[in-house]
Amino acid sequence: MIKFGIIGANGYGGGELLRLLSQHPQVELGMIASRSQEGKRLEEVFPTFWGHPWGKVTFVDSEDPSCTAGCDLVFMAVPHGVSAKLGPALLAQGARLIDLGADFRFKDPKVYSEWYKVEHQAPELLAEAVYGLPELFRDELPGARVVGNPGCYPTATLLGLAPLVKAGLIDPDRIIIDAKSGFSGSGRTAKPELVCGETADNMRAYGVATHRHTPEIEAVVARLASRPVTVSFTPHVVPMPRGILSTLHLTLRQPATTADLIDVFNAAYMKEPFVCVLPEPYLPETKGVLGSNRCQIGVRADRRTGQAIVVSVIDNLVKGMAGQAIQNMNLMFGLEETTGLLHPGMWP
Amino acid sequence: MIKFGIIGANGYGGGELLRLLSQHPQVELGMIASRSQEGKRLEEVFPTFWGHPWGKVTFVDSEDPSCTAGCDLVFMAVPHGVSAKLGPALLAQGARLIDLGADFRFKDPKVYSEWYKVEHQAPELLAEAVYGLPELFRDELPGARVVGNPGCYPTATLLGLAPLVKAGLIDPDRIIIDAKSGFSGSGRTAKPELVCGETADNMRAYGVATHRHTPEIEAVVARLASRPVTVSFTPHVVPMPRGILSTLHLTLRQPATTADLIDVFNAAYMKEPFVCVLPEPYLPETKGVLGSNRCQIGVRADRRTGQAIVVSVIDNLVKGMAGQAIQNMNLMFGLEETTGLLHPGMWP
Amino acid sequence: MIKFGIIGANGYGGGELLRLLSQHPQVELGMIASRSQEGKRLEEVFPTFWGHPWGKVTFVDSEDPSCTAGCDLVFMAVPHGVSAKLGPALLAQGARLIDLGADFRFKDPKVYSEWYKVEHQAPELLAEAVYGLPELFRDELPGARVVGNPGCYPTATLLGLAPLVKAGLIDPDRIIIDAKSGFSGSGRTAKPELVCGETADNMRAYGVATHRHTPEIEAVVARLASRPVTVSFTPHVVPMPRGILSTLHLTLRQPATTADLIDVFNAAYMKEPFVCVLPEPYLPETKGVLGSNRCQIGVRADRRTGQAIVVSVIDNLVKGMAGQAIQNMNLMFGLEETTGLLHPGMWP
Amino acid sequence: MIKFGIIGANGYGGGELLRLLSQHPQVELGMIASRSQEGKRLEEVFPTFWGHPWGKVTFVDSEDPSCTAGCDLVFMAVPHGVSAKLGPALLAQGARLIDLGADFRFKDPKVYSEWYKVEHQAPELLAEAVYGLPELFRDELPGARVVGNPGCYPTATLLGLAPLVKAGLIDPDRIIIDAKSGFSGSGRTAKPELVCGETADNMRAYGVATHRHTPEIEAVVARLASRPVTVSFTPHVVPMPRGILSTLHLTLRQPATTADLIDVFNAAYMKEPFVCVLPEPYLPETKGVLGSNRCQIGVRADRRTGQAIVVSVIDNLVKGMAGQAIQNMNLMFGLEETTGLLHPGMWP
Repeated sequence: MIKFGIIGANGYGGGELLRLLSQHPQVELGMIASRSQEGKRLEEVFPTFWGHPWGKVTFVDSEDPSCTAGCDLVFMAVPHGVSAKLGPALLAQGARLIDLGADFRFKDPKVYSEWYKVEHQAPELLAEAVYGLPELFRDELPGARVVGNPGCYPTATLLGLAPLVKAGLIDPDRIIIDAKSGFSGSGRTAKPELVCGETADNMRAYGVATHRHTPEIEAVVARLASRPVTVSFTPHVVPMPRGILSTLHLTLRQPATTADLIDVFNAAYMKEPFVCVLPEPYLPETKGVLGSNRCQIGVRADRRTGQAIVVSVIDNLVKGMAGQAIQNMNLMFGLEETTGLLHPGMWP
Repeated sequence: MIKFGIIGANGYGGGELLRLLSQHPQVELGMIASRSQEGKRLEEVFPTFWGHPWGKVTFVDSEDPSCTAGCDLVFMAVPHGVSAKLGPALLAQGARLIDLGADFRFKDPKVYSEWYKVEHQAPELLAEAVYGLPELFRDELPGARVVGNPGCYPTATLLGLAPLVKAGLIDPDRIIIDAKSGFSGSGRTAKPELVCGETADNMRAYGVATHRHTPEIEAVVARLASRPVTVSFTPHVVPMPRGILSTLHLTLRQPATTADLIDVFNAAYMKEPFVCVLPEPYLPETKGVLGSNRCQIGVRADRRTGQAIVVSVIDNLVKGMAGQAIQNMNLMFGLEETTGLLHPGMWP
Repeated sequence: MIKFGIIGANGYGGGELLRLLSQHPQVELGMIASRSQEGKRLEEVFPTFWGHPWGKVTFVDSEDPSCTAGCDLVFMAVPHGVSAKLGPALLAQGARLIDLGADFRFKDPKVYSEWYKVEHQAPELLAEAVYGLPELFRDELPGARVVGNPGCYPTATLLGLAPLVKAGLIDPDRIIIDAKSGFSGSGRTAKPELVCGETADNMRAYGVATHRHTPEIEAVVARLASRPVTVSFTPHVVPMPRGILSTLHLTLRQPATTADLIDVFNAAYMKEPFVCVLPEPYLPETKGVLGSNRCQIGVRADRRTGQAIVVSVIDNLVKGMAGQAIQNMNLMFGLEETTGLLHPGMWP
Repeated sequence: MIKFGIIGANGYGGGELLRLLSQHPQVELGMIASRSQEGKRLEEVFPTFWGHPWGKVTFVDSEDPSCTAGCDLVFMAVPHGVSAKLGPALLAQGARLIDLGADFRFKDPKVYSEWYKVEHQAPELLAEAVYGLPELFRDELPGARVVGNPGCYPTATLLGLAPLVKAGLIDPDRIIIDAKSGFSGSGRTAKPELVCGETADNMRAYGVATHRHTPEIEAVVARLASRPVTVSFTPHVVPMPRGILSTLHLTLRQPATTADLIDVFNAAYMKEPFVCVLPEPYLPETKGVLGSNRCQIGVRADRRTGQAIVVSVIDNLVKGMAGQAIQNMNLMFGLEETTGLLHPGMWP
């Protein structure tokens, strides 16, 4: 049994970890921490836990360094900067670390500090930290002590890009990513723009040309393409609780048909338990992965424009966050990768 | 031209007043005030005003007593207590006052202080203040200086109750009101329970046996029934931006058919411009009044139980708030009652 | 392993059975049948099954009597009338039967024919058929061959009524039920009133004084009260995919406090795995049971009116349909009652 | 007074025309026609008209050629092909014609027949037909007999493209359009994919590389650029009733700043009553134009990629359909262009 703790367990990422881990046969709840909810019971913070055995577990103070004592693994669901600060002490305690934030996603601390506007507090850990996208970097996960769990947008986007980039089929200098997310990606904190009357029936672009997931996507594409890459990334928020749909507008280097492209994706993902490529005439919908750890991908070649359009969908809180973190945990600890994660999504 | 001001113009009630008044041919914008948005332009606070002539109007400080100078009419869209405090000075300036809050809804200051937990600051105004539900108290409105604009739930509920109470057809001691509101009724302030992820796809009861609209309904029913009345009122919040549906569970004093009851409602409302009784087999839907100042009512007699079930729908921000305030303004100032308010709702 | 089949597996009830059964460790998919979807793969009808092992299973023709051959258990997710017609042959094949529709919910075929406007086709099975609400009739389920799975509204309502009726605390002649359901309860068939533009941001009452779940509730309350009972039941549809909130307006026979009533509920449900009574000041929300088999209940006494107000929430497709059917299956076949059903809901 | 008729008045476009025209001071309702709703009253088809003077107007049979007799103007809200078939007879009756469908949007009947898969039935009218996007082709509208009202996506998209194309600032061979629409754009007909349970909380791309609005956009851009143009257009449906947000991914021909681009847009639209360019740091939201005839535009230059990202929002049923049709009507008949259309949107 893996004894786990969660720091920042009061947000949507933390709640989703608890929902999924409560169904995982090889874990044991060590502690849940939150500064703002200290002393409250889980059921008071997540009403889904009324009547559940974990509902009476009480949040401890995340500022107390001893809170993680005895944990084999700590999930960090905290703002950037916190994981880097707490990480070294956690490792010294013998715990491993999966950071749901950005602190361990970059190999180069300069990229981090440029986009996140803070110095990295534990640059010495970046060499060993693994970027936890198992479909691309599975081999690095067994035994890893520190995993940077990918961002939600990068997860959907990179799974849609990787096969075509690796195969050299698209021009890496003309990658245009138009991504749409449900509002849970904006978090649970009370901010004026998140009030229900403001978000209902409303859609907007945000972070245009400045979103912090841009360098994360670029870093991975650069690894795959073996050269520096700049991408155009434009996120939008859409009035639904969950789901990301990332539409990739790509320029084919040479003519290809939709069938050709589907073949490339199928070859890349045929053995993947959580990635599914839809055959013609189907295209993925976000609801198709609601609550599940799956990624569904559709692709079309447009002979008129020479473009390939890829549509990749995930649940931003599962494959885009908590589910992927558990997938990483399974690999880190030598468990079957799919443990606790095979359930289908919910319809409707 | 009526020169109007709005104190608290930054919330949903204030915004709806501005939306509707911008189409009213006999008003002129005097000022909009808000403590939190002082100095901002209207278009920055309500994006619907980008490109509109009023969009460049700037919020003034609502704490500045001179802000209302020159206004013929001031709409108060502020928490309870504020209108009573500011009211006397406003009247002394020569302005009239429509309070969208609770300060001028009760004749008896004790009822107010019992439910609102504060002493009334201007009890001397309560005698002249008119409860602004024109369908019931139209005669009191012309020339009125102070109007207490009814609550959203009381508006929908009282329009559904009045004809049956007046006709003596129901037992006034067994009035059960089960009301449902869209979330704009909860306001625009950033509170944890209003974050979109918390409200989306979610429904709950609240204020059970304690909601402050209870005594407001009771006071009016008591006037209509000429005796004290206690009602059971249970509100719910429903995941949609606007709309109230109030379901009234009433005990018939003697057998009646649905057709009988519809006749009673038609007789009561046949000349009303904003109340419509639906014939069988139709029942009202909240979307049928989306954005309009109308109230739609359906009624059924249940011969098995001897109950009458009335369904009354309004847009909580229009007939339940800003539209009704303008209807009151029209009557106070001797304009045609329907001026600026006859547009149908929006579908879908 | 229980080999199961589903007739009518293409609707929301069928899909939810498949979602939940795919996580159940002691079942095996025998067949899925649908007249309209015959020949299609499950993944084409429920996109949540793309990439899932069951996704390639093909719908067979539900009209073919041999389709259920070899099944230990058949779930009937079909319009009323069909289960009664097919039931005897199924039992003769050695299969057991859980009907998600109304055919086996009534002991008295006259009540059925009065409300459903058809003669019952298998009245000889009604004596042995069990009304599958385990919290009330658990003892009848082990070994049962035919189970009438309760309606969604009756499930939420009866769990909220039973403790108070049994304890004799409320007047059974004055039970008023005001229930609200998400739109999945209206099914998946393309009808004009279910088009998204018509339902979005919209709420309405329907079936006022005529809804078919009324006699189902009455029959059970009558058993609990040992006397005939007539209830007033008013359902509404609310713009959210899932969830029922049933508000019960009850007349207390003698004064009681909220604490008294909570004690009664706690005593009734303390050992129930799927029913949770919320302590003050909490009230249940539908999102608290989203996707889970739980029922959450809150209650308040109103000393002003002498009413008890009970709020009971379920996911209409889980505890109100597919989850409860699996709970019944577990009991019928001697499995642990909670098998495959203990997951918490999803938030947000 | 302009006496108008609407053929196909039962859909969302027809209903929106009636909502807006009911507020227009210079029109008179001539007739509303619908094959499927013949004989029904308007209030039965659009519940927003209960209690409204037009509510009792009855739908006539749209197949009856005499139904349009006496109309000065007929709005066609019908599937493509119908307007071309009926158009010549309408003109012969002396009526003018605004087609909300595609029949009069193309100068070249071959483009029409290639994308719509039918021969054009009135190619002789294409020369005189005006593409009714007033911001680009205002001069052609006064006196026009036949107007092809633009598609919803082309309206949002072309208003976002035109200033940059005209100024020669972007490469017309690399125009990538990623558009998102609320579901009212899919119409009111009961189809399986439009059932509320299927669309709620769901987002998908559709018509990838094949959507019929593609050639419409291309034809206009080609006129503006004075050369043939091929664009990549990818539409998506988003779970909200109304609103289109079109994100344009454009390649700048030479370096430019956001301020430069905003200047170009401001110069193009400064006198336009319905188009507003948002200053930094604001970006448009679909809710900002809910129910209004406005288009709001934001633009950003990305110095890293050399891209310009334009965001253009409209209400698909107003500026994208019925509102624009009325704007065209005003111009055709010599009225003030903004008559009946100046109201701001609704928030929330």
